[in-house]
Amino acid sequence: MYYLGPEGSYSHEVSLLFSNLIKKKVKIVSKQTISEVFDEVLKNGIGVVPIENSREGPVNETLDNLFKKQVYVKYEIEKKIDIVLASNKKIKNVEEIRRIYSNYYAIQESRNVLNDLNKEIIQVESTSKAALLASKDLKGAALCSKFAANLYNLIILKNNIQDGLNITRFVVISSKISKRGKKTMLFFIVEHKPGSLYKALKEFYKRKINLTMIYSRPLKEIAWNYYFYVEIEGSLKEKRVKKALKELIKNTVDMKIKGSFIKI
Amino acid sequence: MYYLGPEGSYSHEVSLLFSNLIKKKVKIVSKQTISEVFDEVLKNGIGVVPIENSREGPVNETLDNLFKKQVYVKYEIEKKIDIVLASNKKIKNVEEIRRIYSNYYAIQESRNVLNDLNKEIIQVESTSKAALLASKDLKGAALCSKFAANLYNLIILKNNIQDGLNITRFVVISSKISKRGKKTMLFFIVEHKPGSLYKALKEFYKRKINLTMIYSRPLKEIAWNYYFYVEIEGSLKEKRVKKALKELIKNTVDMKIKGSFIKI
Repeated sequence: MYYLGPEGSYSHEVSLLFSNLIKKKVKIVSKQTISEVFDEVLKNGIGVVPIENSREGPVNETLDNLFKKQVYVKYEIEKKIDIVLASNKKIKNVEEIRRIYSNYYAIQESRNVLNDLNKEIIQVESTSKAALLASKDLKGAALCSKFAANLYNLIILKNNIQDGLNITRFVVISSKISKRGKKTMLFFIVEHKPGSLYKALKEFYKRKINLTMIYSRPLKEIAWNYYFYVEIEGSLKEKRVKKALKELIKNTVDMKIKGSFIKI
Repeated sequence: MYYLGPEGSYSHEVSLLFSNLIKKKVKIVSKQTISEVFDEVLKNGIGVVPIENSREGPVNETLDNLFKKQVYVKYEIEKKIDIVLASNKKIKNVEEIRRIYSNYYAIQESRNVLNDLNKEIIQVESTSKAALLASKDLKGAALCSKFAANLYNLIILKNNIQDGLNITRFVVISSKISKRGKKTMLFFIVEHKPGSLYKALKEFYKRKINLTMIYSRPLKEIAWNYYFYVEIEGSLKEKRVKKALKELIKNTVDMKIKGSFIKI
């Protein structure tokens, strides 16, 4: 099982959680980027990547990989994100801290506390890298998870510093399509003309299929053209879902079914 | 006129471009964050912020501010983003460089060249801060605009290093709503039940109003609930647009009209 690393990342924590849940001993391997997790999964095995945060929205690199590569979704796992302020054990209180390390998302999600603390913010690639840097800096601290703080032997100075409720959805991905589960994921592109999205959504509406997610992403090569990322209620085993997707193909320029998935 | 700074940012460049176009002498003031530009504009004057990049998608902080604050869109300006690799004039060739400074977006948009160069990447808040740091570092370089490279007296080592075509749309914002222009911006929230988005889009479809943008953003406080950001063709002076929006209110939980705007 490949996960978005480095060691101590939220994906690492979710991978361990998942391997406990399925009660199978699997080797867990860290990869540096979401794209690398996808490339390994294309060859064999499964992977764990974040797909959406309840405050910051979808994770674009995960969507772009799902859109481009023949990789499918098998499971989704929600994890409450608690961000802590942690430092080397030699630091006794918040006043001793000069700089705070963290990644882009954790900084966005902790704006209120960061404004109050008023320290220098150093943006790094991941919260686990932040924890590593804080472990070596006697004037520094990290915004990271409890899991990363423990892994790097840090002391927690403040708990729950994120702005309000914060949940990240992770998905377990595989190179084989799955038809089991209560939700189904798909991507499509509609024609660049009036009513094309409306007509696409009609196929779901007619069959009383609920959309739990619709989100647009740029096609990149053609400016101001988009693909849609959609999640619907129902599995690929259900007749009404099969029928809706069959009709949808006719109303779209391109469509990619990413399988049904189980919430665990 | 307030812009997303620091000095040398793309928003700075667009502000100068805009003040030349309108041929009015206006004082141009840098602000540290998009939210600060909005807060100043709420008090008085106008502002310039990025709203969408053709490769990376909408700028979420701009959308969240438009959604929350009584600020409206007056103009849009497209700017081709050319990213250059630039360094202190004492550096003679790329081999001398050990580290490259840039911000999150420019790094994402230059992945191919960065992979080839294989140098340490240091992520900072903006491309103009990257240019400033590179000007003081004899082993460093920046990914930034030509405008920033000139401002910080850097030499350009490589031109056009971004992956393919890259355009950013900027908007000029004001505290007064505008009804002139070929496009209109709005935000809405639909009920959390099957068919609610479909029914909302019907109001545009019935009147042959084209959607040029639809994008969802989390409501944050309620996990997995979203608001929609929509741009349509037509101005608030047009009867069919007025009628569509009047009907749309009935099919939405909340709706905010952000005005019509002119492309310049």
